[in-house]
Amino acid sequence: MLESHRVTGVEAFRRKIEILTKLLTRHRMTRTISRRSPKTSTSQSRYRTSGFARSLLREWKRLELPLSHERIVVAVSGGADSVALLLGLDELIASGRLKSELIVAHLNHRLRGKASAADAIWVTALAKQLGHESVLGSVDVRRKAARLGDNLEQAARIARYEFLERTARRNQAAAVLTAHTMDDQAETVLLNLLRGSGARGLGGVEPIRSIEPTSDLLLARPLLSWAERPDTEDYCRQRDIEFRTDAMNLDRKFARVRVRQELLPLMRTFNPNLVKGLVRTAEILREDNGALDKGAARLLEISIEPDDATSLRFDLLANAPRALRRRALRLWLEQCRGHLKRLERVHIVAVEELLFGERGGRVFEVPGGGRVTRGRGRLHYTN
Amino acid sequence: MLESHRVTGVEAFRRKIEILTKLLTRHRMTRTISRRSPKTSTSQSRYRTSGFARSLLREWKRLELPLSHERIVVAVSGGADSVALLLGLDELIASGRLKSELIVAHLNHRLRGKASAADAIWVTALAKQLGHESVLGSVDVRRKAARLGDNLEQAARIARYEFLERTARRNQAAAVLTAHTMDDQAETVLLNLLRGSGARGLGGVEPIRSIEPTSDLLLARPLLSWAERPDTEDYCRQRDIEFRTDAMNLDRKFARVRVRQELLPLMRTFNPNLVKGLVRTAEILREDNGALDKGAARLLEISIEPDDATSLRFDLLANAPRALRRRALRLWLEQCRGHLKRLERVHIVAVEELLFGERGGRVFEVPGGGRVTRGRGRLHYTN
Repeated sequence: MLESHRVTGVEAFRRKIEILTKLLTRHRMTRTISRRSPKTSTSQSRYRTSGFARSLLREWKRLELPLSHERIVVAVSGGADSVALLLGLDELIASGRLKSELIVAHLNHRLRGKASAADAIWVTALAKQLGHESVLGSVDVRRKAARLGDNLEQAARIARYEFLERTARRNQAAAVLTAHTMDDQAETVLLNLLRGSGARGLGGVEPIRSIEPTSDLLLARPLLSWAERPDTEDYCRQRDIEFRTDAMNLDRKFARVRVRQELLPLMRTFNPNLVKGLVRTAEILREDNGALDKGAARLLEISIEPDDATSLRFDLLANAPRALRRRALRLWLEQCRGHLKRLERVHIVAVEELLFGERGGRVFEVPGGGRVTRGRGRLHYTN
Repeated sequence: MLESHRVTGVEAFRRKIEILTKLLTRHRMTRTISRRSPKTSTSQSRYRTSGFARSLLREWKRLELPLSHERIVVAVSGGADSVALLLGLDELIASGRLKSELIVAHLNHRLRGKASAADAIWVTALAKQLGHESVLGSVDVRRKAARLGDNLEQAARIARYEFLERTARRNQAAAVLTAHTMDDQAETVLLNLLRGSGARGLGGVEPIRSIEPTSDLLLARPLLSWAERPDTEDYCRQRDIEFRTDAMNLDRKFARVRVRQELLPLMRTFNPNLVKGLVRTAEILREDNGALDKGAARLLEISIEPDDATSLRFDLLANAPRALRRRALRLWLEQCRGHLKRLERVHIVAVEELLFGERGGRVFEVPGGGRVTRGRGRLHYTN
């Protein structure tokens, strides 16, 4: 379903590039890209680092991302955010402040026909001009979504992260970078609020984490905590790069687009610093959630039977604060089943009621497999 | 500043009522109020309890409010929510399901001249017709706000709760009830989100708590968890009562009014069940916050020097999750100072930095009094 092409050395792809290069002029890739050079920099300041790159470096250090010669996969769609991230990293590498070896990764979602293909070429050409390697992938997201019953955004996101992770593994990269900004974070927080989420959802995305729980490959968002959309657009303009615009980012049938175009502007009329506020709220709630997850893991550890993890004593659980108890039960079910699929808050509450012998009797059938029974001061999980 | 009058037996006030009663006919208090009687109830169902009253009774029991002969102060502004609360309680008392003795409390904020006075009379007359005692208070909120430098909403809120608490104490009441609905809760959550709050603010108001930390007087909101605004309006109509409308509830210079009239309607276009979702989010976050406050209190307890509460060891604090550490430091400062006035998140962060010997040196001056110094593995508080 998903094919990925190494740009360099693949003959078929070279031919494709040749043909499509003709399109390029139509798409404003005519300018020469200056390597280190906010527009304002003159000869005497040619080694001066831009504010954007300095902020990026500060965040890079705060996140403890590798400063040495490691490979880093950068996801670049061609939009202002990801192009600014690429240009900022490029500036830091060019000025010797960063030693990373960049791999520019672009996934063609084939949702917008020729426009999608043109984006792929544009990103490849940009990477080439900057002197970085690039990897293109292509996936029919619409077909994938139809097959899996996901919505388009969800299917695109899954395909993108699969592609990025595979690209990173094939290249022994240390980290995958995405260009999420504070605006993206604010949108995520609001989308989750509109769904009635708790602290986990309202915490938004993390600035850095393992790409999978047990993996040593990092997923980092080095713009998330400090850059707003105007910052990335301004920096692209400073560098004389006309980033691409994805028409789907303007399509109001997507909830995220409406949050961006309708909800955020209205909320800004109450507080002009709203985006910063939402990002701060998300950070506080992530901290809260982290502390509670830790407490819940400890509660589970001391509640589980030492020789049988599918058996759970409930005396300690019953006396714990509800926020810890529910998290511990969720974690227990995740460990027993190996996943959290189809498990929602309402199911955790049902297991909790089992604990107190309230409504719902003595058995709970977990959706998507497994059952929990109550007996002799314990909950038992069976497949 | 604040005068409160017992309606019954005060001669001066009786004269005032007589004069103002003439206004009454202009304000549609002409109808006779039927005591137990959704409009639909016919003779054979005259003892049938309305859905509204049944929901109220269910919540009453869930909150473990007293079912016996206790005095209960009900705050009644005259708006649909508080009138519905009063009518619902009245229905439960009339049908013998509740034994409480109600005291209807109304504070005239004197913000709308004759309209404010007319509300006071309307509420007094309603209480009288239902056969409940009432207490009127009056305060010049505008002057109070100017004197204290508070905004109007803040000053009105403080004056109102002072009045309610005093009324409850004078009458040896067990609880004060306010008629906050799910809509009020949703508005509070959003107002706090617009300010960039954490879990404490996003948790909204509590359905029940002590009116002050060490008090045995309860403050309860028995509509908060289940009633939406249309429910209270419908119930008033069922009971044939034309509730009052406060013009200030329509004044868009107040952020809360704009949240109600602009933000919530837009957010409902994303999710028609938005209010329920926000109320649920608030509940989850209150639980989270409660568990973290508990953990923080424990952390503080084991970090404080046994013989000197102004001295705090920092080894355990330094290793605790940040969410617990910051809450513990906040609690410590509150205990040392006796209050939380002027203490904001940024100050807690500054004390935390002191802990780690980062920026900010070895002393932190707490705004509004007191200082924290660092030395020999401890933080010290001095006045």
